Amino acid sequence: MDNIGLIGMVSVFSAALCMAIGSIGSAIGEGLAAMAALRSIAQQPDHTAALTRTLFVAMAMIESTAIYALVVSMILIFANPFWQYAITKAGG
Amino acid sequence: MDNIGLIGMVSVFSAALCMAIGSIGSAIGEGLAAMAALRSIAQQPDHTAALTRTLFVAMAMIESTAIYALVVSMILIFANPFWQYAITKAGG
Amino acid sequence: MDNIGLIGMVSVFSAALCMAIGSIGSAIGEGLAAMAALRSIAQQPDHTAALTRTLFVAMAMIESTAIYALVVSMILIFANPFWQYAITKAGG
Amino acid sequence: MDNIGLIGMVSVFSAALCMAIGSIGSAIGEGLAAMAALRSIAQQPDHTAALTRTLFVAMAMIESTAIYALVVSMILIFANPFWQYAITKAGG
Amino acid sequence: MDNIGLIGMVSVFSAALCMAIGSIGSAIGEGLAAMAALRSIAQQPDHTAALTRTLFVAMAMIESTAIYALVVSMILIFANPFWQYAITKAGG
Amino acid sequence: MDNIGLIGMVSVFSAALCMAIGSIGSAIGEGLAAMAALRSIAQQPDHTAALTRTLFVAMAMIESTAIYALVVSMILIFANPFWQYAITKAGG
Amino acid sequence: MDNIGLIGMVSVFSAALCMAIGSIGSAIGEGLAAMAALRSIAQQPDHTAALTRTLFVAMAMIESTAIYALVVSMILIFANPFWQYAITKAGG
Amino acid sequence: MDNIGLIGMVSVFSAALCMAIGSIGSAIGEGLAAMAALRSIAQQPDHTAALTRTLFVAMAMIESTAIYALVVSMILIFANPFWQYAITKAGG
Amino acid sequence: MDNIGLIGMVSVFSAALCMAIGSIGSAIGEGLAAMAALRSIAQQPDHTAALTRTLFVAMAMIESTAIYALVVSMILIFANPFWQYAITKAGG
Amino acid sequence: MDNIGLIGMVSVFSAALCMAIGSIGSAIGEGLAAMAALRSIAQQPDHTAALTRTLFVAMAMIESTAIYALVVSMILIFANPFWQYAITKAGG
Amino acid sequence: MDNIGLIGMVSVFSAALCMAIGSIGSAIGEGLAAMAALRSIAQQPDHTAALTRTLFVAMAMIESTAIYALVVSMILIFANPFWQYAITKAGG
Amino acid sequence: MDNIGLIGMVSVFSAALCMAIGSIGSAIGEGLAAMAALRSIAQQPDHTAALTRTLFVAMAMIESTAIYALVVSMILIFANPFWQYAITKAGG
Amino acid sequence: MDNIGLIGMVSVFSAALCMAIGSIGSAIGEGLAAMAALRSIAQQPDHTAALTRTLFVAMAMIESTAIYALVVSMILIFANPFWQYAITKAGG
Amino acid sequence: MDNIGLIGMVSVFSAALCMAIGSIGSAIGEGLAAMAALRSIAQQPDHTAALTRTLFVAMAMIESTAIYALVVSMILIFANPFWQYAITKAGG
Repeated sequence: MDNIGLIGMVSVFSAALCMAIGSIGSAIGEGLAAMAALRSIAQQPDHTAALTRTLFVAMAMIESTAIYALVVSMILIFANPFWQYAITKAGG
Repeated sequence: MDNIGLIGMVSVFSAALCMAIGSIGSAIGEGLAAMAALRSIAQQPDHTAALTRTLFVAMAMIESTAIYALVVSMILIFANPFWQYAITKAGG
Repeated sequence: MDNIGLIGMVSVFSAALCMAIGSIGSAIGEGLAAMAALRSIAQQPDHTAALTRTLFVAMAMIESTAIYALVVSMILIFANPFWQYAITKAGG
Repeated sequence: MDNIGLIGMVSVFSAALCMAIGSIGSAIGEGLAAMAALRSIAQQPDHTAALTRTLFVAMAMIESTAIYALVVSMILIFANPFWQYAITKAGG
Repeated sequence: MDNIGLIGMVSVFSAALCMAIGSIGSAIGEGLAAMAALRSIAQQPDHTAALTRTLFVAMAMIESTAIYALVVSMILIFANPFWQYAITKAGG
Repeated sequence: MDNIGLIGMVSVFSAALCMAIGSIGSAIGEGLAAMAALRSIAQQPDHTAALTRTLFVAMAMIESTAIYALVVSMILIFANPFWQYAITKAGG
Repeated sequence: MDNIGLIGMVSVFSAALCMAIGSIGSAIGEGLAAMAALRSIAQQPDHTAALTRTLFVAMAMIESTAIYALVVSMILIFANPFWQYAITKAGG
Repeated sequence: MDNIGLIGMVSVFSAALCMAIGSIGSAIGEGLAAMAALRSIAQQPDHTAALTRTLFVAMAMIESTAIYALVVSMILIFANPFWQYAITKAGG
Repeated sequence: MDNIGLIGMVSVFSAALCMAIGSIGSAIGEGLAAMAALRSIAQQPDHTAALTRTLFVAMAMIESTAIYALVVSMILIFANPFWQYAITKAGG
Repeated sequence: MDNIGLIGMVSVFSAALCMAIGSIGSAIGEGLAAMAALRSIAQQPDHTAALTRTLFVAMAMIESTAIYALVVSMILIFANPFWQYAITKAGG
Repeated sequence: MDNIGLIGMVSVFSAALCMAIGSIGSAIGEGLAAMAALRSIAQQPDHTAALTRTLFVAMAMIESTAIYALVVSMILIFANPFWQYAITKAGG
Repeated sequence: MDNIGLIGMVSVFSAALCMAIGSIGSAIGEGLAAMAALRSIAQQPDHTAALTRTLFVAMAMIESTAIYALVVSMILIFANPFWQYAITKAGG
Repeated sequence: MDNIGLIGMVSVFSAALCMAIGSIGSAIGEGLAAMAALRSIAQQPDHTAALTRTLFVAMAMIESTAIYALVVSMILIFANPFWQYAITKAGG
Repeated sequence: MDNIGLIGMVSVFSAALCMAIGSIGSAIGEGLAAMAALRSIAQQPDHTAALTRTLFVAMAMIESTAIYALVVSMILIFANPFWQYAITKAGG
């Protein structure tokens, strides 16, 4: 249970936790937006284009928070500076 | 309880946790979207095509957050760099 | 309490947790979708076919998140690479 | 408190937890669906057949998530590969 | 605090937890269904028979999730294979 | 703190927990059903008999989940096979 | 901290926990029922008798879950078989 | 930290916890009942007597769950058989 | 960390916890009652007297659960039999 | 870490916790009452006096639960009998 | 880790916790009151003065619970009798 | 891990926790107030001035609870009497 | 695990926690305000300017609570007096 | 488990936690705003431009809280002063 073990273990757990929790808000937020878009299209079918466009721009923005979490998660798995340091030191 | 045991144990738990929590938001968000789509089709049966198309594009986007969690989960099980390092070192 | 015990124990717990939590969102999301479908059929009985078709496609998509959790759970029980490694090593 | 004790103990707890949590979402989701079906039948008594059919197909789908949890729970009690390995090894 | 003590202790706790948590969703789901049925009977007294029949079939299905939990709970108390193994071994 | 102490302690706690948590859902579910029944009687006083009959059958079914919890609780207190085994062994 | 201390301590805590948690659902369920009864009496003052009768029967049924918790709590305090065993053994 | 200390400590904590949690549901349930009663009196001022009577009977019934918690709490403080046993034994 | 320290410490914490949690339900319940009373007075200003009277009797009843918690809290601080016993014994 | 340290430490924490949690319910309850009062004044500006009077009496009653928590908190800081005993004993 | 360290540490944490939690209810309660006041002014602009006056008196009362928490927090930081005692004793 | 380490560590954590939790209620309360103000302006555009003035006074009051938390947080970081004492003593 | 390690570790965690939790309330509060603003603009398009102005002033105020959290977080990372003290002492 | 291990481990976990929790509020807040915007466009299609502009400015502001969390997360991974200090010291 040296530094490599500790940092590796925590990185695995953190990456998973980050993606898991980071997807909840995003998915529910997009669900709310899609819900409103679908009700609005039913109310104003003539403006489907404008509504769909707004929906997708909004969803892209909401998706961005899940992307941030994915990015942090990927950095922790594949480009983790703490891990790099630890294995460099252990290898030296 | 060396590094292999620790990292393996945490990877198993993290992969499961990530998929488990990552599916909650996604499923509920899609449920909300489907709910709105079905109510809207009942309200405007003539626009079923447009509503269904919007629903499926939105659902694909919402599903993407569950996919991210699945990807992180699979990486942790089958392409885990921390585990690779640990077994390489143990095997050397 | 060697590596085999640890990894086995955590795999059992993780598989159960993954399926347990992964089914909550899915079941509630499908419940919401079914609720809307039934109310919509009552409102527009003439479009039962379109509504039912949309419901089942949506439910299949929502069910997919529970399937992901089931898949991760099965992998952890029957094709767990960490466990394979541990018993191979113990058997060697 | 050897491996048999540990894996047995965790399997018992996991099987119970899996079934317990896995039944919550399913039961509430079916309750929502049944609620909507009953209100819809009251609104459109002439379409009781279509509504009931849709309800039961939907409920079967929602029930499936509880069945998944039950299956995982049963596997952990009666066909647990980790337990098989541990008692085989202990018996050898 | 040998294996018998551990597995016995965990079995008792798991059986109780399984039944306790497993009954929450079921009871609330049935409450929702009953609520809708009673409101619907008040709205359409002439279809009491159809409504009651649908209610009881739905309730039976919802009750099934509590039954699953009860079954798992009973198995853990009276037909627990882990306990059988432990006392067989201790008695041998 | 031998096996008798452990199993006795956990049995006491589990029996109490099981009854405590198992009564929440049941009581709230019955409250929802009673609420709907009373509002329905006020709406359709002429069908009080049908409503009350449906209410009591539904309540009996909801109560059954609390009864299951009570049964498990009583089994754990008065017919606990793990405790029987432990005291038999201690007395032998 | 022998068996008497342990079982006594856990019995005290369990009895209190059981009554505390067991009263929440019951009180809220009865509150919902009373709420509906009062609104219904205001709506149909001529059927006060029928409403009050239904209310009290329903409340008795809801109260029963709190009574179960009270019974378990009293058994744990005054007729606890685990405690009887422990003090009999200690006194022997 | 002998048995007297342990049982005394747990009794104090349990009595407080029991009363604290046991009062939440009761107070909120009574609040809901009072809310409905006041709205009903405003709607049907001519039936204030019947409404008030029903309110107080219902409140007494809801209050009973808090009373149960108070009784358990008082028993644990002033008539605790586990404590009696412990101090009798210590005094002997 | 003898019995006096333990029981004193737990009594302080329990008294505070009991009052803290015991006041939540009561305050919210009274808030709901007051809310309904004020809306009702605005609706039926001519019956302010009857409404206010009912409000205060109801509030007194709701307040009683906070009073119970206060009483338990005061008993634990100023008339705690476990503390009396401990200091008597320590002083003897 | 003698009795003085323990009891002092717990008293500080308990006093803070008691005031912190004890203020939540009270503040929200008063907020609900104020909300209703303001909406009622807007609805019946001619009865502002009666409404304001009822509001303030109700708020005083709700405030009382926060006052109880404050009193317990102050007693624990400035008139704590457990602390008095501990420092008297330490000083003797 | 003597008494000074312990009591100092706990005082810091308690003061922060007390203010943090104590501000939640107060801020939300005031938000509800302000919400109602603004809607009421929009409904009855001619009575802005009466509404604003009632709002500020109510807010002052709700604010008082946050003030209590602030006072307890300040006492724990700047006039903490437990700390005074500890440093006096350490200094003597 | 002497007193300086302990008190410093706890001060850092407490200051962060205090600001973090203390901002939740405040931000949501202001959100509710702003929501009502904007809806009211849309309803009564002629009274924008009065509404905005009331909004800002109310928001200032709600903001005050976040300010209290900020003040406590700043005191704990920059004017912490417990820290002053500890470093004075360590420096002496 | 000396003071530097402890204070550094806690500062990192506290800064992250503070920003994480501090952003929840703020984002949701702004979401509520934006929601109301957009609905109001749709209702009164002629007053878009006044509504937008009020929205942005309100949002700035709500944002301020997130800013406070960011400030505390930055102070803990870059101007942490506890850390300064610890490294000064360690360097001396 | 020296300072490098500790600070590295905590930094990894904190960065992940910060991004994970920091994205929840933001995503839900943007979802609410998008929901309102889409409903408003359906209500006033002629003002799509004004609504979309307001939506995007509001979303940018809400997104800012997620950006703050991302910034703190990135600082902790790539410009962490505590880590710099620790590795400098370890390297010296």
